[in-house]
Amino acid sequence: MDINELLATRTSHIKASAIRELLKIATNPGMISLGGGLPSPESFPLDLIMDLTDKVIKKYGSKALQYDLTEGFIPLRKALIDYCKTFGVDAELDNVYITSGSQGFLDSLGKLLISPGDYVAVEGPTYLAALQAFNAYEAKYVQMQTDDEGLIPESLEEVLNNYKVKFVYTVPTFQNPSGKTIKLKRREQIAEIVKRHDVLLIEDDPYSALRYSGDQLPTIKSMAPENVVYVSTFSKIFAPGLRLGFFVAPESFGRWMVIVKQGVDLNTCTFTQAIASEYLIGGHLPNQMAKTISLYKPKLETMYTALKEYFPADFKCVKPDGGMFLWIEGPKGLDMEVVSKIAITKMVGFVPGKFFYPNPLDGIETARLNFSCVTHEQIKFAMKTIAEACSEVTSKKS
Amino acid sequence: MDINELLATRTSHIKASAIRELLKIATNPGMISLGGGLPSPESFPLDLIMDLTDKVIKKYGSKALQYDLTEGFIPLRKALIDYCKTFGVDAELDNVYITSGSQGFLDSLGKLLISPGDYVAVEGPTYLAALQAFNAYEAKYVQMQTDDEGLIPESLEEVLNNYKVKFVYTVPTFQNPSGKTIKLKRREQIAEIVKRHDVLLIEDDPYSALRYSGDQLPTIKSMAPENVVYVSTFSKIFAPGLRLGFFVAPESFGRWMVIVKQGVDLNTCTFTQAIASEYLIGGHLPNQMAKTISLYKPKLETMYTALKEYFPADFKCVKPDGGMFLWIEGPKGLDMEVVSKIAITKMVGFVPGKFFYPNPLDGIETARLNFSCVTHEQIKFAMKTIAEACSEVTSKKS
Repeated sequence: MDINELLATRTSHIKASAIRELLKIATNPGMISLGGGLPSPESFPLDLIMDLTDKVIKKYGSKALQYDLTEGFIPLRKALIDYCKTFGVDAELDNVYITSGSQGFLDSLGKLLISPGDYVAVEGPTYLAALQAFNAYEAKYVQMQTDDEGLIPESLEEVLNNYKVKFVYTVPTFQNPSGKTIKLKRREQIAEIVKRHDVLLIEDDPYSALRYSGDQLPTIKSMAPENVVYVSTFSKIFAPGLRLGFFVAPESFGRWMVIVKQGVDLNTCTFTQAIASEYLIGGHLPNQMAKTISLYKPKLETMYTALKEYFPADFKCVKPDGGMFLWIEGPKGLDMEVVSKIAITKMVGFVPGKFFYPNPLDGIETARLNFSCVTHEQIKFAMKTIAEACSEVTSKKS
Repeated sequence: MDINELLATRTSHIKASAIRELLKIATNPGMISLGGGLPSPESFPLDLIMDLTDKVIKKYGSKALQYDLTEGFIPLRKALIDYCKTFGVDAELDNVYITSGSQGFLDSLGKLLISPGDYVAVEGPTYLAALQAFNAYEAKYVQMQTDDEGLIPESLEEVLNNYKVKFVYTVPTFQNPSGKTIKLKRREQIAEIVKRHDVLLIEDDPYSALRYSGDQLPTIKSMAPENVVYVSTFSKIFAPGLRLGFFVAPESFGRWMVIVKQGVDLNTCTFTQAIASEYLIGGHLPNQMAKTISLYKPKLETMYTALKEYFPADFKCVKPDGGMFLWIEGPKGLDMEVVSKIAITKMVGFVPGKFFYPNPLDGIETARLNFSCVTHEQIKFAMKTIAEACSEVTSKKS
């Protein structure tokens, strides 16, 4: 039996994630990887788990081990209503839904809305796993322009004038991969544009709790609640291995997502939902975030300092106010995939930025560097190694 | 923004699960429900959870809270290799994969193989949530015939001669909904047929550990390992709220499923996978199954006895050797959906059998009755009530 003869036509759009393949290389012994997007294991509240589990068993008993509502575990959804208030998102119970990671949201979103050939408006670069989720439903992409202040509202407007898009997808704060943040004025403009065009915008916000400098910005959701679906995850505020995401949406949207999700996984893991409820209810989040920020913020400083020290002046980089990534842009023509291959031979991994663009010809000279999951010493060594690999490629060319 | 204007074309094939809607009614106070498919909360090893969690934290530490391989948590996959041996399924690590419930398997399977309009061969009746998963990929169904001994091999052969099916889907042991089991001789014939036609058969086996009488039967997988993908779940051997399923497949199939699953949920909940590993490694399964069987077996007896006592002789029922369901077939023309509506007014819920057929005109006079999640007293009352509702409908007609 040859599986290749049985594949659905959509599989021609589905590829193994380049990053997941690179992560496999990164697990080779001795390899220093700036390639992943993993939170630091040190940031996980391992010491809380027994206590939270004990509370879950006493409070919810066998309910925590049973099938549950597709919508999500009600105590968790209620706790999220309060959490969302802290960043200006108003919600009732029927606006808050749990998904199996934010990936679960992206997959169900694609399934619900994307017919083959439908357009989705995305930033370039954008979150790779979102493209991966939408690719399976045979989406086409319209790329919106960005600069140092994130998505350019005029570009969004132009896209909406010229394409019938199913939805607009953006990661407005400390974007993966670029680390960029859409500034306040632009958020207001974007909210106004999506309201005027009456389109759906997906605000994917996994990183905003990881802010190291600058002031918290209001969500686009808070400015256009009827047109925006706000999505986030417990992966960066608790632990990714729980596989919990959530979204806040108009009820009509949520109801449809629930119908789709029934066929995908019936319900998200009840047990870890109950643990996450107790984590929020117990008020552990602020301490945990303070600890995580104290871990990541100095690593960003180390990486940025190493960049200034080791890389030539023609490398561009906007220092992000938070998140887990530094995004660098080499001189025109420098192929970061070639640099990456040299770096791997020197036991350093990172992800060439071109993988994050819907158009495979874009971003050749860019790279995403993760700092959350490596030590200060590893960051310095890796940055020096990548800089040397860049010189090697540049000198070969000239 | 009107969500209905944005829906993908495939949504015309996606409906809310009739059962999930019925389960909502079943949660009304005072309602006795034979409608669900939930394991009894009494069957969950609640007293083990703290101990297993403690072991997980000590043994795996933060690894249990981190992102993990899409393929599944390696200690769990290794433990499953041994578990599979107990029912004659041979596997290496690259044959065993974890999914987010068996529903996660069914969804990824549909995504991988079903192009709109592709045929899938299913039993009539069949597992509703499988239809739901495949519907989203716009499958068409060819119904294979069954009798008291389960799927009729000649019917499978006829279907394969007349249709190009992407795969054959069967629940051979204590099927949900019919409780029927494919007998040994037929398993051998089915294995021979799928090998000869070189087609893919999905053997979905959530219930075989719940055997109350008769001898264990070999899996079809053990008879045609290259053509069969074996699927099962922890929902009936541990707890459904962990949302863990698994499958055993040729590596070429597994590799493709992993690529698809990356876009769906990155990986299944690491934490509950680690707990399930310790559950298997700790040897808790046999005790737990003995306890569960001692709980369910007498309930099946009570239900079957009540059936004989309260229902007229023209009702057909094959007493199953295991599982969680009794399947009854009333006299031709009796509409079990009408009966169900009357029963609900008397505070008893069950699922009319017609929902389990791909053809909506089939199975009008059938019903699925669940006995795992109700008490003996509730079973007796419910059976009496349903029998009375049947008489009511019959007398109105005559």
